[in-house]
Amino acid sequence: MLIEKSVKDFIYEVKSDNPTPGGGSVSALAGSLGAALSNMVGNLTIGKGKYEEIPEEKRTLLEINQEKLSFLIDDLLSIIDEDSTAFDDVMKAFKLPKSTEEEKQIRSEKIQLGYKKALEVPLKCAQKCLETLNLQKVFAEYGNVNAITDVGVGTLLAYSGLEGALFNVTINLKSIKDEEYREKIEKAVKESLEKGKELKEEILGIVYKRLS
Amino acid sequence: MLIEKSVKDFIYEVKSDNPTPGGGSVSALAGSLGAALSNMVGNLTIGKGKYEEIPEEKRTLLEINQEKLSFLIDDLLSIIDEDSTAFDDVMKAFKLPKSTEEEKQIRSEKIQLGYKKALEVPLKCAQKCLETLNLQKVFAEYGNVNAITDVGVGTLLAYSGLEGALFNVTINLKSIKDEEYREKIEKAVKESLEKGKELKEEILGIVYKRLS
Repeated sequence: MLIEKSVKDFIYEVKSDNPTPGGGSVSALAGSLGAALSNMVGNLTIGKGKYEEIPEEKRTLLEINQEKLSFLIDDLLSIIDEDSTAFDDVMKAFKLPKSTEEEKQIRSEKIQLGYKKALEVPLKCAQKCLETLNLQKVFAEYGNVNAITDVGVGTLLAYSGLEGALFNVTINLKSIKDEEYREKIEKAVKESLEKGKELKEEILGIVYKRLS
Repeated sequence: MLIEKSVKDFIYEVKSDNPTPGGGSVSALAGSLGAALSNMVGNLTIGKGKYEEIPEEKRTLLEINQEKLSFLIDDLLSIIDEDSTAFDDVMKAFKLPKSTEEEKQIRSEKIQLGYKKALEVPLKCAQKCLETLNLQKVFAEYGNVNAITDVGVGTLLAYSGLEGALFNVTINLKSIKDEEYREKIEKAVKESLEKGKELKEEILGIVYKRLS
């Protein structure tokens, strides 16, 4: 498993001339790191120092989000490995026989199914990164000010995981023939990128304000 | 060493209530991953397929940048660990005695020296990430088109490493009393952030164009 490798070895695996692990796995890692940084800020905030001075409603939100982030860290961690095999079915399908019309038909269908699977993994990654960004905002507003830079880095990373994963959705989408499916995914890509950009700008605005 | 830990354990170390490893180390990791992705694209481009069709001048640039990226990966890898101890001198200095005027003077000077050291580590990280972005452009333009999404993710990561590291420079700069030094660093922060943003936008523009 990739996540059992050392940080150094993982980076050397990325660097190698093997296409996996590539941008897909790295996007999931970025998302997981982003969630982990906000979770750390939560650990340095909840129940510490002047925590009781934070409005109760916001404390509840911090605590709920803290728990949700904990799950997202692990979800994104598993996508690191999942992404590196997401394209396997496409490769297998391309190797199927294509001598008869029936074989050609089956092969083509399997290729299409493979591409759908290959793009649904980074799509899931993008959704988890967007969710992470969503949860991070309250940490920027009410998290321990000494750790405000960590919220900033976490936001940059979660956003990179989102846009990075969407690159991988888009490239695989180019091979999809099912127009209805393609339009549905294109819409989801566009909407989540817009929402993510908006959230990132908003959170970084708060970070810069509290930093100054 | 942090980089000898597994990816999973590293993320759990970030998540913990210990402030290190935090955003500084994660920024260096992001930069190193960004450089590694472009290096992989180089490995999938140089000498492969239609490589000879790329203008000679650009092939030379790809090969030079490929080598430089290889060094940057390792430089940024070592900053992951360096950053986690960058603040140690500040902590030590705060524990120095402050009974006499002379002790107060020494303590204050050591604190200032500590903050300078603490900010020079992320400043170096930011410079290495900016250099990575600079080298990445030609991979976006002439790299293997099948790996164009990897250049995209690499760019997002190198940029996150840059802005993330600069957060850490800025927060430590607030404690520096030497006005001349502070102004010099503030200028460097502003300039490298502007340059990095410009490069990121430019590279991502090329990525989206080649992706469509």
